[in-house]
Amino acid sequence: MSQRIAAGIDIGGTNIEAGWVLPEGKVLSRGKIKTRSFATPQDMVHAVSHMLSKQRSAMDETYEVIGAGIGAPSSNFYSGCMEYAPNMPWPGVVPLVKLFEAEMNCATYLTNDANAAALGEMIFGGAKDMSDFIMVTLGTGLGSGFVSSGKLLYGHDGHAGELGHTIAIPNGRPCGCGRKGCLETYASATGIVKTAIERLSTAHIASSLNDISLEKISAYDITMAARNGDTLALEIFEFTAQILGMKLADTVAITSPKAIFLFGGLAHARELLSVPLKKNMEQNLLNIYQNKEDILFSQMTDDDAALLGAASLVWQEKG
Amino acid sequence: MSQRIAAGIDIGGTNIEAGWVLPEGKVLSRGKIKTRSFATPQDMVHAVSHMLSKQRSAMDETYEVIGAGIGAPSSNFYSGCMEYAPNMPWPGVVPLVKLFEAEMNCATYLTNDANAAALGEMIFGGAKDMSDFIMVTLGTGLGSGFVSSGKLLYGHDGHAGELGHTIAIPNGRPCGCGRKGCLETYASATGIVKTAIERLSTAHIASSLNDISLEKISAYDITMAARNGDTLALEIFEFTAQILGMKLADTVAITSPKAIFLFGGLAHARELLSVPLKKNMEQNLLNIYQNKEDILFSQMTDDDAALLGAASLVWQEKG
Repeated sequence: MSQRIAAGIDIGGTNIEAGWVLPEGKVLSRGKIKTRSFATPQDMVHAVSHMLSKQRSAMDETYEVIGAGIGAPSSNFYSGCMEYAPNMPWPGVVPLVKLFEAEMNCATYLTNDANAAALGEMIFGGAKDMSDFIMVTLGTGLGSGFVSSGKLLYGHDGHAGELGHTIAIPNGRPCGCGRKGCLETYASATGIVKTAIERLSTAHIASSLNDISLEKISAYDITMAARNGDTLALEIFEFTAQILGMKLADTVAITSPKAIFLFGGLAHARELLSVPLKKNMEQNLLNIYQNKEDILFSQMTDDDAALLGAASLVWQEKG
Repeated sequence: MSQRIAAGIDIGGTNIEAGWVLPEGKVLSRGKIKTRSFATPQDMVHAVSHMLSKQRSAMDETYEVIGAGIGAPSSNFYSGCMEYAPNMPWPGVVPLVKLFEAEMNCATYLTNDANAAALGEMIFGGAKDMSDFIMVTLGTGLGSGFVSSGKLLYGHDGHAGELGHTIAIPNGRPCGCGRKGCLETYASATGIVKTAIERLSTAHIASSLNDISLEKISAYDITMAARNGDTLALEIFEFTAQILGMKLADTVAITSPKAIFLFGGLAHARELLSVPLKKNMEQNLLNIYQNKEDILFSQMTDDDAALLGAASLVWQEKG
């Protein structure tokens, strides 16, 4: 029997990556193009499909293509469209599934990037034996994908899973969404930098972070400082964990997951984040949930996660 | 073909009600016994089964029994047990499904009372055409049942759906669960009474509620006062709606329901609650959710809701 393969297409604000994936999670091929090279979504879809077709022609002929999965921001599984994505060059509603299906001639599925990461974790990563878990991506924003009874939670309109836009602190930090106090303004790679800048510009505390100019501080810098025992950096992680831990406890009371997986830039801090996070989450949990939910790290590598996440949509729907 | 019927058994802290239900939601028979009449769960199960059997023998012989559904506090669908229910006479883990199955000789299912209410709404009530919604019961506490893609959200251990124990105000009012600031200490029939007592005992405001002694004030009194235009009572509803609206907005960002149904004592306030609640929820919603989720009232009557909720478990599993 011929091996089956699926295309994974990850559409980001800067790059689009696309490649072919085997059912066991091996990436057979991959390519990257700049998102902003294309004036229209049609041009982009044409170029990406062409790239995948070229990769395909260099591979074993016997592979059988069973579909294509797309992960993209502000994307809706039900409608098959990217909808008003804030950091994308194409405005309005972009019918990605329809456009790719026409070029690729195979079943095509779309979901938002955090949902794709959750599916990738379930099919190829650390959640293989789990049917109820949450994926939290801590990058520029905070994305989330909820898996319940082995399926992504989509809600009535495909928009479920926006944990980053629950309110962490009423009337708190302004958020890109136009509201105030959203969780992602505190708990994300960007959020922890905001915390550092607030602390450094209001208090005169001895910290190696004072050696970096405020506009250049990154989540990586704060992580490195904390790793070296910097008191302020450690306090910044504790503050971040307090806020995220409280909101994760609320979330556990709603969906009762077996585990919460962390991924993305801020997750590179590993136990600097997960240890205070677990402590703060437990402190806010109702007794029936205590010591039952794990905080884990994604088992997908940064290099493969986006492609595997996108391709996992195909295995989920047609596997 | 013979008509199929299911038993509904609702186990509460004061009464146990049990009866037979037709698939279209008609209650054929019902009976009630006092929960505290029985020293052991075995005695209770025996008496309830006997009551159902007597009801059955007075009915049309051609009815075919397809199962029994039980709604009870602190109950777990997966384990079939009531687990450490705080206001029940029987301590520890009570294997209700096993006990009833042995007496009733039919397929038996158990879930907690708020989950049963959610299923009842979907199968017999106002959520017949919905596959994603939330049921919120506002009684002594705040119970919740989440339906997603037409199924109850149980989580990995059967404990999903405890919205009443998310944190509304950090370090806020003490809760029966031992923690502080849980949503149900503000948004429930008991919670709104606490708010009234706080306001009446700290401020000297003209209010018809001053005519009632503090220890006797009920959610009904506050509702009646608000209905008569009492400023303080209206302000108490606004405060309750602010807190519940904020937490419902968070919840919408997680599960994106089509509607939120309200049931229970405080829901009798109808638009006195739902109008400020809708306003406050909308103010806290991310733009993609705005004006898409309805706040509705359960279409089940107070008399039938518990029996129908319990029986709906059978139709959900075997329908």
